[in-house]
Amino acid sequence: MRIVVTGGAGFIGSNLVDYLLQRGHDVVAFDNFSTGRREFLETARRSPAFSCVEGDTLDPPALVRAFTGADFVFHLAANADVRHGTEQPRKDLEQNTLATFNVLEAMRAAGVRRLAFSSTGSIYGEPNVFPTPEDAPFPVQTSMYGASKLAGEGLITAYCEGFGVQAYIFRFVSLLGERYSHGHVFDFFRSLRRNPGELRVLGNGQQRKSYLYVQDCLDAMLLAIERSDEPVNIFNLGTDEYCKVVESIGWITAHLGISPALTYTGGERGWIGDNPFILLDCRRIRALGWQPRLSIQEGVVRTLEYLQANLWLQNAPR
Amino acid sequence: MRIVVTGGAGFIGSNLVDYLLQRGHDVVAFDNFSTGRREFLETARRSPAFSCVEGDTLDPPALVRAFTGADFVFHLAANADVRHGTEQPRKDLEQNTLATFNVLEAMRAAGVRRLAFSSTGSIYGEPNVFPTPEDAPFPVQTSMYGASKLAGEGLITAYCEGFGVQAYIFRFVSLLGERYSHGHVFDFFRSLRRNPGELRVLGNGQQRKSYLYVQDCLDAMLLAIERSDEPVNIFNLGTDEYCKVVESIGWITAHLGISPALTYTGGERGWIGDNPFILLDCRRIRALGWQPRLSIQEGVVRTLEYLQANLWLQNAPR
Repeated sequence: MRIVVTGGAGFIGSNLVDYLLQRGHDVVAFDNFSTGRREFLETARRSPAFSCVEGDTLDPPALVRAFTGADFVFHLAANADVRHGTEQPRKDLEQNTLATFNVLEAMRAAGVRRLAFSSTGSIYGEPNVFPTPEDAPFPVQTSMYGASKLAGEGLITAYCEGFGVQAYIFRFVSLLGERYSHGHVFDFFRSLRRNPGELRVLGNGQQRKSYLYVQDCLDAMLLAIERSDEPVNIFNLGTDEYCKVVESIGWITAHLGISPALTYTGGERGWIGDNPFILLDCRRIRALGWQPRLSIQEGVVRTLEYLQANLWLQNAPR
Repeated sequence: MRIVVTGGAGFIGSNLVDYLLQRGHDVVAFDNFSTGRREFLETARRSPAFSCVEGDTLDPPALVRAFTGADFVFHLAANADVRHGTEQPRKDLEQNTLATFNVLEAMRAAGVRRLAFSSTGSIYGEPNVFPTPEDAPFPVQTSMYGASKLAGEGLITAYCEGFGVQAYIFRFVSLLGERYSHGHVFDFFRSLRRNPGELRVLGNGQQRKSYLYVQDCLDAMLLAIERSDEPVNIFNLGTDEYCKVVESIGWITAHLGISPALTYTGGERGWIGDNPFILLDCRRIRALGWQPRLSIQEGVVRTLEYLQANLWLQNAPR
């Protein structure tokens, strides 16, 4: 297949690009390199089946050109920053909601019928049901990020009904692994390198969070696309575990061999829209035969090893 | 209170304007008069507590000016046409999703903290649970209209969490009554005036639909705002009945005293995104002491009487 990956130079996108190339596909990475990194495409560039388009999801003609001749689009380009939503609400609207509309319209113009979309467990807001299944009670949004991804899902499913698009919607927990370049492990690692004696934690550290190793996520997405063939296919992707923020701090400091003093900003939530408990019900994807290879703890350690081997990321523009 | 009604010259909006003026509020109707009608504001204009701003929800500075000094915003302005969504998908995105974002940002700029929003039962897509409650399983969208309203709800609830907005979200069934100027009764009435001998029905006529009389809807909204005081307040608004399209055709033709031959375009759905069964669970609003005064049949007849007394609407630009 000829596959376009929007956000193809990002953390998840670039891993996906390599994964698809290894499986013999022609792959186009579409990225505006605002947070994507050229270094992440170094492996891909060695393949003749790879090409890269520098373009923006807010530029519809660029999308149409990139999509022309493609069989499948993975739409991963997004503002993935949950924490700063209220400081710049327009950013989630534009980069997530409008961008997804542009992707759908470009697919229509270019005649591409199949799409995978990186949605999020944040879309459940603060649910009452744990683990939270895909058909959880109608959620109430608590973050601009969740709201923008909900809007994206709504558009995509309406296009499935209206224009015969086939969609795979994946609601991720937070991902970990190689090329991880933002999120709590990144922030803690950076802070501890600067000052190994102290670590400031947003909230009370008791937030219960779920994580998934990026390669496990890629396995799950490709398996779903292979084995599920509904017009609309929606899957939670996570492990069956969660960890408290203080637990992951314990793994991080143990791995680094340090014992910083911990200070807490306090409260159940580290920021507006921070969800104190995320645990997704992943029986739907497990029923297709998938299971994650790494536990959360193993994923955290793998991520730290990557960050230690790639200190250039600490100083790269973000 | 000083209250702004976006879409204040529309079917529901203009009835709401009159209703609020009667109860002693200062009311500003904000409308671009694309589908709103100056005739609908003739009663309101007699009140010194009324003012009208001709403006567009896609013009943020106009919204900020209109909202300055207001205590409450009813955001009813929308593209309310469900049927033609796939012909112009950008219209729902702009007039419903982006417009709602603009309203929220203008509220923030003008310091208005309370909002009521006209959402829709279409947001449930094609649900599996009947009657459908507010916390129905996470829906899959089947229309551009539903998707755009879902996006609006997501934005609003994220603003409640992020910016301390208090919101009343009302998921309407189709409304009927005075100033009704689009929808199936309008279309059938117009068609039968032109040709009383024949009526073409979209779909097989077996679609089961719910309707609510506009004055009953206004009672419900104001009661909810008076008696419910959560940060996010979500209410289905409908009757506990439904009717088949062929039944409502029976009431219409009986009222008009004609017996047209019926032809059907066929299929369970009259158009893409047409929902074959709409019945909302309205126990939440009923628990506050509300009940509708008119049955669906009475609402249909009331609407016909209005249309018969206002034939100018048949020839007005739409």
